[in-house]
Amino acid sequence: MKIGILISGRGSNMVAIAEAVRDGAIPDSDVAVVVSDKSKAPGLEKARELGIETVVVTRKKRSREEHDAEIVSELKKHGVELVCLAGYMRLLSAGFVRAFPNRILNIHPSLLPSFKGLHAHEQAIQYGVKISGCTVHFVDEHLDHGAIILQKAVEVRDGDDADSLSKRIIVHEHAAYVEAVRRIAAGEIVIKGRRVNTKAITHDD
Amino acid sequence: MKIGILISGRGSNMVAIAEAVRDGAIPDSDVAVVVSDKSKAPGLEKARELGIETVVVTRKKRSREEHDAEIVSELKKHGVELVCLAGYMRLLSAGFVRAFPNRILNIHPSLLPSFKGLHAHEQAIQYGVKISGCTVHFVDEHLDHGAIILQKAVEVRDGDDADSLSKRIIVHEHAAYVEAVRRIAAGEIVIKGRRVNTKAITHDD
Repeated sequence: MKIGILISGRGSNMVAIAEAVRDGAIPDSDVAVVVSDKSKAPGLEKARELGIETVVVTRKKRSREEHDAEIVSELKKHGVELVCLAGYMRLLSAGFVRAFPNRILNIHPSLLPSFKGLHAHEQAIQYGVKISGCTVHFVDEHLDHGAIILQKAVEVRDGDDADSLSKRIIVHEHAAYVEAVRRIAAGEIVIKGRRVNTKAITHDD
Repeated sequence: MKIGILISGRGSNMVAIAEAVRDGAIPDSDVAVVVSDKSKAPGLEKARELGIETVVVTRKKRSREEHDAEIVSELKKHGVELVCLAGYMRLLSAGFVRAFPNRILNIHPSLLPSFKGLHAHEQAIQYGVKISGCTVHFVDEHLDHGAIILQKAVEVRDGDDADSLSKRIIVHEHAAYVEAVRRIAAGEIVIKGRRVNTKAITHDD
């Protein structure tokens, strides 16, 4: 399976996926391209160190649709079959979502539907939850909204601030994102509306 | 510590708390009264079997404030210091909340702030979360909103419906509610805004 990864920053989840592909934890797959909307995203250098082709597609003064069309074109040119957002800081247009139906993933550092959007760790700390975590989900046109593939719960401790909580959650993000991509690459999941289940293994499979 | 418990139905969390008090898991405490707003709540009979005094205070055609004032009066008459809602199906008025500042608890069968209100299990199933759970929290005038004391995460499985999920969560509700009441009875918690922390134990305590 050819994977394309979108980043805007350091892309630590991109690195986790790329290393899992390299090490065979995500089998029969290849990270075909890493696309950044920021020319100075630190993740670009890391991708090159991992031997992955990188492309920068900045928004400039274009509409979201025009920007997304160029990104989709780059992904298609590289034969991408699965798109992983890894700290990509933009909402996708309807056109982008339609170009990869049920084939765009995102990870969010909370147990959705709690604490959508920016500063999820800070939101969790402010609310005073005792359990937060991370969510790997399919991407639709709404913010942090698509069907959920996998969640991991992470304890919030008394002395936590957004920084210490984010450091505890990110470890689980890497593991969760790799596991979700592996399941999709292995064809193990079935989607029914908002529910994403594990395919029953039969002798015919 | 004298505990008063409010129910509207079968009150399984009421039974869990009452048994924990009886067995010493919640030490130095006493369930002084169980109040129901429904004369036919099945929990009333269970409370009597446990040797607990019961009072029925129906709403009749009164305002919420008048109804609550009578309940508060019953609780005060029984010397209640901590109020536990256990399947009590009404929002409390501001007057009720003010009568027991930081001394009213509720349990909700989700990881708040997700899935507030009625049919929390069904909401979780419909949304397609992979992790749900339960939350013990202080009660304020807003629905399922006050500061969180304790949460327990519970896995949602592929074949789950609201019924099977509720049966898996209720076990954790009983344990979580008992543990939260124990902590409060033992004076182990400190409240800072929305954050409820464990008091640091020092030699002066």
